[in-house]
Amino acid sequence: MIIVMSPGASEKQVQGVVERLEARGYGHNVSAGVERTIIGAIGANEREKQYVAEQLSQLPGVERVVPILKSFKMVSRDHHPNGTVVKIGEAGFGVGHLGVIAGPCTVESEKQLMDATKAVKTAGATVLRGGAFKPRSSPYDFQGLREEGLELLAQAGKQFEMPTVTEAMEPRQIELVAAVCDGIQIGARNMSNFDLLREAGATGKTIILKRGFAATVEEWLKAAEYIATTGNLNIILCERGIRSFDTVTRFTLDLAGMAAAKLETHLPIIVDPSHSTGTHRLVAPMSLAAVAGGADGLMIEVHPHPDQARCDGPQSLTPKRFSTLMEQIRQLSTLMGTMR
Amino acid sequence: MIIVMSPGASEKQVQGVVERLEARGYGHNVSAGVERTIIGAIGANEREKQYVAEQLSQLPGVERVVPILKSFKMVSRDHHPNGTVVKIGEAGFGVGHLGVIAGPCTVESEKQLMDATKAVKTAGATVLRGGAFKPRSSPYDFQGLREEGLELLAQAGKQFEMPTVTEAMEPRQIELVAAVCDGIQIGARNMSNFDLLREAGATGKTIILKRGFAATVEEWLKAAEYIATTGNLNIILCERGIRSFDTVTRFTLDLAGMAAAKLETHLPIIVDPSHSTGTHRLVAPMSLAAVAGGADGLMIEVHPHPDQARCDGPQSLTPKRFSTLMEQIRQLSTLMGTMR
Amino acid sequence: MIIVMSPGASEKQVQGVVERLEARGYGHNVSAGVERTIIGAIGANEREKQYVAEQLSQLPGVERVVPILKSFKMVSRDHHPNGTVVKIGEAGFGVGHLGVIAGPCTVESEKQLMDATKAVKTAGATVLRGGAFKPRSSPYDFQGLREEGLELLAQAGKQFEMPTVTEAMEPRQIELVAAVCDGIQIGARNMSNFDLLREAGATGKTIILKRGFAATVEEWLKAAEYIATTGNLNIILCERGIRSFDTVTRFTLDLAGMAAAKLETHLPIIVDPSHSTGTHRLVAPMSLAAVAGGADGLMIEVHPHPDQARCDGPQSLTPKRFSTLMEQIRQLSTLMGTMR
Amino acid sequence: MIIVMSPGASEKQVQGVVERLEARGYGHNVSAGVERTIIGAIGANEREKQYVAEQLSQLPGVERVVPILKSFKMVSRDHHPNGTVVKIGEAGFGVGHLGVIAGPCTVESEKQLMDATKAVKTAGATVLRGGAFKPRSSPYDFQGLREEGLELLAQAGKQFEMPTVTEAMEPRQIELVAAVCDGIQIGARNMSNFDLLREAGATGKTIILKRGFAATVEEWLKAAEYIATTGNLNIILCERGIRSFDTVTRFTLDLAGMAAAKLETHLPIIVDPSHSTGTHRLVAPMSLAAVAGGADGLMIEVHPHPDQARCDGPQSLTPKRFSTLMEQIRQLSTLMGTMR
Repeated sequence: MIIVMSPGASEKQVQGVVERLEARGYGHNVSAGVERTIIGAIGANEREKQYVAEQLSQLPGVERVVPILKSFKMVSRDHHPNGTVVKIGEAGFGVGHLGVIAGPCTVESEKQLMDATKAVKTAGATVLRGGAFKPRSSPYDFQGLREEGLELLAQAGKQFEMPTVTEAMEPRQIELVAAVCDGIQIGARNMSNFDLLREAGATGKTIILKRGFAATVEEWLKAAEYIATTGNLNIILCERGIRSFDTVTRFTLDLAGMAAAKLETHLPIIVDPSHSTGTHRLVAPMSLAAVAGGADGLMIEVHPHPDQARCDGPQSLTPKRFSTLMEQIRQLSTLMGTMR
Repeated sequence: MIIVMSPGASEKQVQGVVERLEARGYGHNVSAGVERTIIGAIGANEREKQYVAEQLSQLPGVERVVPILKSFKMVSRDHHPNGTVVKIGEAGFGVGHLGVIAGPCTVESEKQLMDATKAVKTAGATVLRGGAFKPRSSPYDFQGLREEGLELLAQAGKQFEMPTVTEAMEPRQIELVAAVCDGIQIGARNMSNFDLLREAGATGKTIILKRGFAATVEEWLKAAEYIATTGNLNIILCERGIRSFDTVTRFTLDLAGMAAAKLETHLPIIVDPSHSTGTHRLVAPMSLAAVAGGADGLMIEVHPHPDQARCDGPQSLTPKRFSTLMEQIRQLSTLMGTMR
Repeated sequence: MIIVMSPGASEKQVQGVVERLEARGYGHNVSAGVERTIIGAIGANEREKQYVAEQLSQLPGVERVVPILKSFKMVSRDHHPNGTVVKIGEAGFGVGHLGVIAGPCTVESEKQLMDATKAVKTAGATVLRGGAFKPRSSPYDFQGLREEGLELLAQAGKQFEMPTVTEAMEPRQIELVAAVCDGIQIGARNMSNFDLLREAGATGKTIILKRGFAATVEEWLKAAEYIATTGNLNIILCERGIRSFDTVTRFTLDLAGMAAAKLETHLPIIVDPSHSTGTHRLVAPMSLAAVAGGADGLMIEVHPHPDQARCDGPQSLTPKRFSTLMEQIRQLSTLMGTMR
Repeated sequence: MIIVMSPGASEKQVQGVVERLEARGYGHNVSAGVERTIIGAIGANEREKQYVAEQLSQLPGVERVVPILKSFKMVSRDHHPNGTVVKIGEAGFGVGHLGVIAGPCTVESEKQLMDATKAVKTAGATVLRGGAFKPRSSPYDFQGLREEGLELLAQAGKQFEMPTVTEAMEPRQIELVAAVCDGIQIGARNMSNFDLLREAGATGKTIILKRGFAATVEEWLKAAEYIATTGNLNIILCERGIRSFDTVTRFTLDLAGMAAAKLETHLPIIVDPSHSTGTHRLVAPMSLAAVAGGADGLMIEVHPHPDQARCDGPQSLTPKRFSTLMEQIRQLSTLMGTMR
């Protein structure tokens, strides 16, 4: 880190910073500029650097402390410059593998789920999704079929030979989900629920980590690092829109953030055009944009009868529209493969 | 809700909406305007209205559906126009009672906590705070003393005769916190952790519900409604800054949002000037601004030696600064009382 | 518009609203719901509706007023459901025409501009751009060659037979730019500079209207409507990123907002991947994402020697990278044409 | 500035940076850390540093460039640690002087303006405001009385012996406004209209510079620096709310941003609680909050009959409410004076 002294900082104040650095075991490099003295601290202790920086910033004569190193290591692309393939069941994501996770927002009934599964399997999706536990912002909204939904999801996956993923919202649901699904989804509202991240990681299952809708790319990667510290690097990141001042779409899909994250991490990143836009009319253009922009996969909501859905119908594709889109995705993906 | 038809919607499409409304048990009122027909739906079923609106929005000829009613009821000011006093131990918040919750960000050691408690008690704080379980965005940062921190907090509260509050981050911690504290804090990152809200509410303890840093005021009040549905209305809302494009302060303190929320809810609302601004230099002006703007209390971080803190030192007040601020708060609060 | 009365609004208060509507020449439709009475106002006067709505919202017993109609008409897709082709010189944008505007951020010297123009022409760009008047957030930064830059731009356009566009920052520059360029660019900082919009529109030249970085899609379309009211519908909208809480990219490129705007307006929309991302490393993926997502064109910065640029070098492509990208764009555009 | 090299940067790449620095006349200090080499550049040339930093960031082996110095000088508190008093006519702002600018949003008629002026003068406002040229986001909204409005404003100021301010939206209006008013307001939409800033500054009149609703505090101060470079330091900054994701208030009033700006600049800062909140119900609490938080003045909209206003009626105070508020402000201001 770099310690920037105030314009009028005294020699004694500079010395105070140096002594504190030495006491903490850091080397230092003092550089007196025209307007300010700056001090470089050499040798960071990962577990201490955050609070050492905070402490230094309060010493007399210090203007501010500028961090130099990033706070994620295991998920950094520095360690795997060519990227990593992560699998859910047999479906691969990353390094040229484009996975498509599809299914209804919420498991509503056996018939609804079986119809949806048949449709997405036929159209070429590689993983089945369906919500059992639902985070709803109003306590009066439908909260999901919970355990019963999980069982139906497992049954559909088995019948149609598709790996499955669903969201776990709190630590006690991790075990339930891990018992029947191939992937555990951590929702946007829980990206910073650090106990949940650790327990999900500890199962060894593939974790789909959605970006919090107010999380920076750096915070997202630090959340992935929480999972990685359990020894589990089967992590797929999912961009699903951030909150901005404009509500013309439900959230603001941050495809450039996705592309920027790919420069930093070796993990695959997928895109959810359904929750981010909130309308089926934008799912196709944003799916294609994501693939052209370098996404390693998509997560798309499909419902046999969107106008009868109990949740998020407006953003769900009909089986027919999904089938058309999958054909377009295949063509685009092929072209992108030739361009790399 | 109001259903707005597209400019060229046919009579048959209007009829389709009317039939769907009738099938769901709603009355209706069709009004043909110059450019558009609009349909008012009469008689909302609280548990259904969200998805009925979503379904209607997908019918042919429908442009959009505009909700009219709000999604919170028990916490609405409609039911208690004069506001409610909520207590933590003997300390009151709301309707003229200004409570001050103070203490260190994190319990670091017995000595640190006892020194801090003595200081805040002497200066006039009415509730003691101290973090035991800490949500940290990097897995490499200090995560709190956890159970040991809880015990120290209980001990400090007993010794200095102060009610205590601390944060619970996941359902399994609720029981631990409820066993020793007078109030349970739900942090900003967990405002939408709905299972946690329900379990915290079910303890009957006073819940301090921090606003999520990307949550609208309406979502915050809906989260409070989750707690209220457990039958527990001992809820204190806490504004602690939202995320905006500017990082000159750590978060953007939304005092107008606090004042707007007070128009909508009867619950007391307090303000956290420490986490929102991230610097002790702004804690005093924002504490005074909050009180002048109508806040029912404050939550302020105090550390005996901020430059040795293991967490959030830069935003912590020294005991001396806190004491000066408390004197100013008292004078301002007295003046505000005469103005109402 | 819809007037929503408060829960306890009296008959007399409802009557007060009705009388005000009648006095303003509006019809009305009163609908008494279970919890609230709502009043539909029929027959809007475009020039009055904004303040009539504001006035109504203040009458006793009124909770709020919900607008139904949008504030743009001439640019609405309602009038041209199939979209419009807009030209800059001979270069078309929209309805299957993909235009590419390229050139240096700023005209720095004759040699720099001629080298850049030759490169973009050879690679296949259809319009030449180059900044003469530069809006810089610090008064100490380079402000452009101004009139001299304009002359160089005109000369380059003539020599390489390319139509040209450049930004005008204030009304007095409009005439200067219109005299030598085929298109006038209105920058993001000036999207709400309404006098400028009107004067630019009055020239009859094609206007490239960049989205303000804090403007909603609706505000953007209303700004286009300002231009349209001068009788000039030669308008090309340009998405160039909005401000969000994350600075991992310079701005947050809102491709879903672009796609949402295309549902509302018949005007062509192009995307600027250079200013939005701020780094050349993201220009290629975001250019491809934009085209796959339905953009009608691109605006890309190219500099013969980005590491010697006086402005925005980090986001500029070298001629070689631009040439590779143009080849990819052509292939992608061809594929997209077959998918429509 | 600090140049941070990539983890694997070669000795030759470090040398390349050093050579570029030397060529530009900078000294340098190379520090080899455990994971990265960093290079401090010594001796900044204000007119070059922005593009030199951009150029350096593109050299091989460079990860990023971290700026150390700020881009504003003349408005920095470094030069006037105790702050500056700025006057509009006889009304002072700053260093204990609390000025109150009040009047209608828009000059609508002679009677409306005279009634409003009488009311605000009687209640104790020190400066009269009233809009003549109005920036409206829709071309169909009322655009102000323009020149006629200016004349009425001048007449009201003369009759009631109040200094006056109004907004100029483009350079050609500067002269008109300067001829009759004591202060020139630069609106939020024009904060980055740099030609306008320079021409306004050149008049020598006091400039009220509103913060752009998507401008960081740093950008706001840089805009003030534009004015200051004309030699005019009669600048009053005005916080009027920023755009955030929540629309519960019209904009998000950033009082902590105001307080943070006061730490950086010697210029006085006032607060506009009317435009920021958009509702008269929040004007009183936010006025008091602003004063308690350290604001040097307020700008408040007052209309004799808000429910007949042609613009922004919902946020206007009646004369009676304004009179009550002014009494509260006086008491609070007195108390704050004793606390300093």
